[in-house]
Amino acid sequence: MPEPPGATYREAGVDLDAAEEAVRRIRPHAARTARPEVVAGVGGFAGLFALDPARWREPVLVAATDGVGTKLELARRVGHHRPVGVDLVAMVVDDLVVSGAEPMVFLDYLAVGRLDPDHVEQVVAGVADGCEQAGCALVGGETAEHPGVIAQGGYDLAGFGVGVVERERLLGPHRVRPGDDLVAMSSSGLHANGFSLVRQVVGELDLAAAHPPLDEPLGDALLRPTRIYAPDCLALDRAVRLHALCHVTGGGIPGNLARVMPEGLGAVVDAATFPRPAPVFAFLRRHVAEEEMWRVFNMGAGMLAVVPDGPAAADVLRGRGVHAWVCGAVIEGPGVRLAGVGTGS
Amino acid sequence: MPEPPGATYREAGVDLDAAEEAVRRIRPHAARTARPEVVAGVGGFAGLFALDPARWREPVLVAATDGVGTKLELARRVGHHRPVGVDLVAMVVDDLVVSGAEPMVFLDYLAVGRLDPDHVEQVVAGVADGCEQAGCALVGGETAEHPGVIAQGGYDLAGFGVGVVERERLLGPHRVRPGDDLVAMSSSGLHANGFSLVRQVVGELDLAAAHPPLDEPLGDALLRPTRIYAPDCLALDRAVRLHALCHVTGGGIPGNLARVMPEGLGAVVDAATFPRPAPVFAFLRRHVAEEEMWRVFNMGAGMLAVVPDGPAAADVLRGRGVHAWVCGAVIEGPGVRLAGVGTGS
Repeated sequence: MPEPPGATYREAGVDLDAAEEAVRRIRPHAARTARPEVVAGVGGFAGLFALDPARWREPVLVAATDGVGTKLELARRVGHHRPVGVDLVAMVVDDLVVSGAEPMVFLDYLAVGRLDPDHVEQVVAGVADGCEQAGCALVGGETAEHPGVIAQGGYDLAGFGVGVVERERLLGPHRVRPGDDLVAMSSSGLHANGFSLVRQVVGELDLAAAHPPLDEPLGDALLRPTRIYAPDCLALDRAVRLHALCHVTGGGIPGNLARVMPEGLGAVVDAATFPRPAPVFAFLRRHVAEEEMWRVFNMGAGMLAVVPDGPAAADVLRGRGVHAWVCGAVIEGPGVRLAGVGTGS
Repeated sequence: MPEPPGATYREAGVDLDAAEEAVRRIRPHAARTARPEVVAGVGGFAGLFALDPARWREPVLVAATDGVGTKLELARRVGHHRPVGVDLVAMVVDDLVVSGAEPMVFLDYLAVGRLDPDHVEQVVAGVADGCEQAGCALVGGETAEHPGVIAQGGYDLAGFGVGVVERERLLGPHRVRPGDDLVAMSSSGLHANGFSLVRQVVGELDLAAAHPPLDEPLGDALLRPTRIYAPDCLALDRAVRLHALCHVTGGGIPGNLARVMPEGLGAVVDAATFPRPAPVFAFLRRHVAEEEMWRVFNMGAGMLAVVPDGPAAADVLRGRGVHAWVCGAVIEGPGVRLAGVGTGS
C-alpha cells in the first residue's frame, strides 16, 4: 500500500485555497443577479426562491439542463471564457420560455482539470451576465476539479434553470393551428450549436485573423455570445396571442420546428425572407453545403414564434429592438419544408 | 482551409445513431420515476411539473446542483456505472431536504468522451434508481459528447434538483436552539465525498480483491451507493419538531455541522456514541490519521438531525428502519467540537 498513516486531503491534490478564492470572486457576480424572491440567510445547502402566492394560481415548474458543447473548445483556444457563460444561460432559459415560463433561478456546474480562480471568475461572470439578461437569479453552482478526467486547461460547463408558468398559459404544439404565421427573431451569430462542424471547418486556422469575408477576428465571430430571447418572448406573450415558440438549437430550423408542430400539421419556411446573415455564416458556407447549413445552424434566426397574426407580433418585437420578420406558415399535413434552399453546394 | 464545400455534421464525428439509441434506452428508466404532477405531452424542450394549488400556500422553490467528484474515476476503473447514478441523486436531493423541501424533479447532465449507449444507460438507470428512492421525477437530462475535453472512457456527471417547501416550514439555523440534540443517521459507507484522498490511499491496489479488514472486494466497498435520506427526513419532519438537518458531505461532520449552527451557537459531537463503522473506514484508517478521517469522511453518519427531543426522533427513524442515535448537542458559544477523537495517528 502506497501511504503510511498520515495521508491527507490536501496532499491528495485538492487545493482548498484556490477553491475559497474562487468562491470569494464568484459572490459579487451572483449578487448582481438577485431577485426579490430569493430567500437568503436560510438553509445554505441550496438556493431558495419564494413564489409569490398572490401571483400564481396553478404554477407549473419548468426545468431544463444544457451545456455549451464544443464551443468551449474554441473558447479555450482563444482564451475568452466569459462569452460561453452567456451561451450557457441562453441555451437553458430559452428552452424554458418555449413553454411560456419565466426563468426564475439558474445554477451552473463547472468541471475543470485544475481550478484556476481567474478562469472560474470569467466563466461565472458570463453566467451572471446571461442571468441579468434573462432576468433570472443565479442561486447556486458547483465547481468540480477532476484532474484525472478533464484535460489540463480544459473544462466543461452545464447549466440548470427553473421557470414558472401559469398552467392555462402553457405554450406549445397543443395551441398551434393551420394558417398560423411563423415569425423569426434574428440571432447574434452561430449561438452555441453546430460547433463540431465549425471546428472541423476551422481546423488550425488562426483565430486572431479576419479570414474573408469576415471583418473581424475569426475567434470573435465564432465566440459571439448567444442572444437571449426569454424577456422578448415573455413580452410578446403579454402583447399578442402566442401559440408556440421554437428555440433553434441543434438540428437547425427544420429540426426544431418539427418539435413544435402537433400531429398532422407541418410548416413551410421561406428562406428568401431571411436577410443576409452575419458574415460568419458566409464564411462557413464556403465549406459547407447550403442544405447542411440549414440542418445544423440557425441561419440568422435563433427563435421562432408561432402566432395567428405574424405582422402584429413582428411589430411588437421590432418595438423592443429585435429584428423580426414573418418567415413562413403552419400548414395542413406533416413535415417541415424549406422553400428556396438549393441542394448540393 | 482544410475542407472543400461538403463538410457535414456527421463527418465531424457526431454519432447521431448512438445518441438516438441512448435516448431510446433512457426513456423506460425515466418513466419509472414519474409522478402524477409531471405534465407530459406539452412543450418538449423542458420538463414540466405542476404544483398542486390545494397543497401549497407559500411555496418556496429549493434548487441545488452537485456532482459525484472523483468517485467517478473508481467507477470507471471497476466498470460499474449504475451506483454513481444513485450517488448523484443523493448528493443533490439531500441538499434539498436540509431546507425541509420535498424533492420534486431531477435532471442529469452526463458528459462523455465518446458516447456509448450501454454506458449512458447504466448511469441513467442509477439516476432513476436514486430518483425512485428519493421520490422525485427524472424530468430531463442532457448527454454531451466532448472528445476533445474528456478522456476516452472518462466521463463527468452533474445533477440538478428542485424541491418545494412551505415557507413557514423552512428548516435551518434560524430554528436551532441551545440544548437541542443531534441525532445521527447511519451511512451506507463512504458515500461520495473524500475520494481524492481515497484514490491516493488506494493507488494501484487490485479493486477486485478483499484487502483486510474488508470482507468484500475493495471496489464494491468503495462504490457502495450513497444512502438517500430525504424520505426519512420528511417523515421525521412530520412526526416530531425538527429544527435543522445537516447533510454530511465534503468537510465531514465538523465542517457541515458548522454550516447549520446560527451565530453564537456551537455543537459537541461525541465520537464514542458512534458504532463501529463499515469496514471500509477501518481500511482507510490504516493510512489516514483519525482526525483527518473526521474532517473528510462521514464516519458512519451521513445525515444529522437537530431536534429538541433526540430520543423521540431516533425512535421515529428506527421505526423506519434507519439506524439512528443521539450523538451530541447544541451548546452556547461558537465552534464544533469532537469529543473522544485522538490526535495524530
